[in-house]
Amino acid sequence: MKFTFIENGVTAPKGFKASGTHCGFKPDKSKNDLSLIYSEVKADCVGMFTKNSVKGAHIYVSKKHLSDNKAQAVIVNSGNANTCNGDNGIEKAEEMTKLVANKLNLNKNDVLVASTGVIGVPLNIENVKNGVPSLVENLSYTGSDAAAEGMMTTDTHKKEFAVSFTLSDGTPVKIGSVTKGSGMIEPNMGTMLSFITTDLKMSSDLLKDALQNVVKYTYNRVSVDGDTSTNDTVLLFANGMAKNTEITEKNDDFNLFVDVLKNLCTKIAKSIAKDGEGATKLIECQVLNAPSDDDALILAKSVINSSLVKTAIFGADANWGRVLCALGYTDIKFDSEKVDVFFESSKGSIKLCENGGSIPFSEEKAKEILLEDEIVIKVDLKYGEGSAISWGCDLSYDYVKINGDYRS
Amino acid sequence: MKFTFIENGVTAPKGFKASGTHCGFKPDKSKNDLSLIYSEVKADCVGMFTKNSVKGAHIYVSKKHLSDNKAQAVIVNSGNANTCNGDNGIEKAEEMTKLVANKLNLNKNDVLVASTGVIGVPLNIENVKNGVPSLVENLSYTGSDAAAEGMMTTDTHKKEFAVSFTLSDGTPVKIGSVTKGSGMIEPNMGTMLSFITTDLKMSSDLLKDALQNVVKYTYNRVSVDGDTSTNDTVLLFANGMAKNTEITEKNDDFNLFVDVLKNLCTKIAKSIAKDGEGATKLIECQVLNAPSDDDALILAKSVINSSLVKTAIFGADANWGRVLCALGYTDIKFDSEKVDVFFESSKGSIKLCENGGSIPFSEEKAKEILLEDEIVIKVDLKYGEGSAISWGCDLSYDYVKINGDYRS
Repeated sequence: MKFTFIENGVTAPKGFKASGTHCGFKPDKSKNDLSLIYSEVKADCVGMFTKNSVKGAHIYVSKKHLSDNKAQAVIVNSGNANTCNGDNGIEKAEEMTKLVANKLNLNKNDVLVASTGVIGVPLNIENVKNGVPSLVENLSYTGSDAAAEGMMTTDTHKKEFAVSFTLSDGTPVKIGSVTKGSGMIEPNMGTMLSFITTDLKMSSDLLKDALQNVVKYTYNRVSVDGDTSTNDTVLLFANGMAKNTEITEKNDDFNLFVDVLKNLCTKIAKSIAKDGEGATKLIECQVLNAPSDDDALILAKSVINSSLVKTAIFGADANWGRVLCALGYTDIKFDSEKVDVFFESSKGSIKLCENGGSIPFSEEKAKEILLEDEIVIKVDLKYGEGSAISWGCDLSYDYVKINGDYRS
Repeated sequence: MKFTFIENGVTAPKGFKASGTHCGFKPDKSKNDLSLIYSEVKADCVGMFTKNSVKGAHIYVSKKHLSDNKAQAVIVNSGNANTCNGDNGIEKAEEMTKLVANKLNLNKNDVLVASTGVIGVPLNIENVKNGVPSLVENLSYTGSDAAAEGMMTTDTHKKEFAVSFTLSDGTPVKIGSVTKGSGMIEPNMGTMLSFITTDLKMSSDLLKDALQNVVKYTYNRVSVDGDTSTNDTVLLFANGMAKNTEITEKNDDFNLFVDVLKNLCTKIAKSIAKDGEGATKLIECQVLNAPSDDDALILAKSVINSSLVKTAIFGADANWGRVLCALGYTDIKFDSEKVDVFFESSKGSIKLCENGGSIPFSEEKAKEILLEDEIVIKVDLKYGEGSAISWGCDLSYDYVKINGDYRS
């Protein structure tokens, strides 16, 4: 499989424009808080949404508008989640799609919507009304950056990635993305908000299949705080402007697309984890030789979600006992007297625990490894052939600071 | 039911002595790190232990010594968990019981053992050998305080409580306790370490029944960090020195004992939560009108364990949307458009969410309520008749500080 990371994020694929503007949700007027992503032609579109039973209003509206698997634009606001705001959140989300549709001469059913920000504060629709005209006027082939900013909340970095690759018949294809992450991140079908565009032509059934497959191994393996958001949304737009012969079966080109998409979404997932609220380090937990892949994932997520593991990594403290503890309080059966634990980074690898017991190791070497900003916790259970990877981040003073007073 | 809280902790009941000493596990020589609790006569004894599949060595030894439901002493060290230390942790735990048995002329099967502290560092048995002589010499009827100190790790307060009450025939009975809590606290059958003594005479079957009933509603409803420890242990000693007629059936006196024990253990559970690592506030979550009591408990624990809820309470920020979010990502079915949420403290009660939506409320009043150090989050689901209470604490800067460098 050959592919290349390229510039220009969600607007990298042919025929996609984007924009961002400030409309009033964020106190800082220099920050965009409203974004628009637009395809020049109507695109096939599939989505995955949060499984939290408390859902943001946009989820209901976007799902409804996606019933025909077609869409041409998505409007996104940050600074207000439009969730649990009383009874007219859905009307407001519908209104947001209508405002965009009117300005762009589209059917409102071809416009999707997403919101992120504080829960339980009524959304001021006047902000959106004021913002949409300039949002539409500013749409551009290099608008990914402005759109990425418009969906950030406590994110410290914009998350824009794109890749290019070539189909078997020589057609060049691109996939682009913008994503917001940061807090309330343990996606369950989709992450907080992630928008993926491609100029590939593929049937919507296969697009859905590809997205579900990829999300399972990427977004659904990230956890910043164990809190599955009310607003998780991932949308994949395919506008066909690469002019390839439509992919309608699971052939080599389908598999290639899935592999490239998985690589892209892995990069996004890791960037979400690394930019988790207050995070100073990316933590990857690899669980090897578990009874099954599913068991391995439960074990890896238990380690990634342990506040005690997260704080130890923040402090660069090789407290591997907490890893064993986090494995042990899952329901998964394994033999604690067979487990090996390694800590790894670009500075090397160190084994701290062998067959469930402590072994002598160099504290200096462990410290050197743990002071890096990407840490791998590798657990070998020697109890089967399943494996899984999960990503998270450390738990820092800044996490407490950010979340102690988020609303004000 | 009448009972009175009294002084003298675990040594309040007749015939119980305790002591503590420094033997070398803690760097600060002025702090006890070894404790002994002793009954003048052999007692009926029942225990409950962690369900973490990774277990401290003392769990195996104490369980074995408890197979006859009899015990006369328990030795406890802090500063080393004697867990995952290689292959001779169990031998060392056995050795600890033998050292006490020899000095007190007991059978080692009548001596129990418990350890708490860092996981994965070999336990230096020489420390125990050096400490046991003075531990036995110092045993006293007022030794609860010294013993409480000897089992503390990151606890900031000693946890010693005792109660007295009167049986139906007029016999006065006492129940005493010492407990350590603080971190790695989401007990699953027992809490970190809790030792309960009583001079009541009751059959061991009924003692076990009483303890299981009480633990379900007290210790098992506490969570500091969602991490079920490898070493959770609760032991209940009943030495019969109150000289009551032995309770052998579930009569009024049995029910009275269970009620009083539940009150005592509720007090202990709340003290563990309030003294959680870095905690500045006790959080109680009450879930009312859920489909069932079990469902209510899952919902209450989800709220108590949410890092986002915990940091909001730390910051006295009335971010009730995070409460709804935490309810929603459980598997429990309820109607999010019926939920009411209240925040309460000694300063009053305030409703922030009605039928799943925001309602206007005074931010000043909410702040006043949330600045207190005991906060109740009350959730009314209006979706059944089940209810449950769970206790936890906020997540502060100090939690990160304490756990970022625990081993050094």
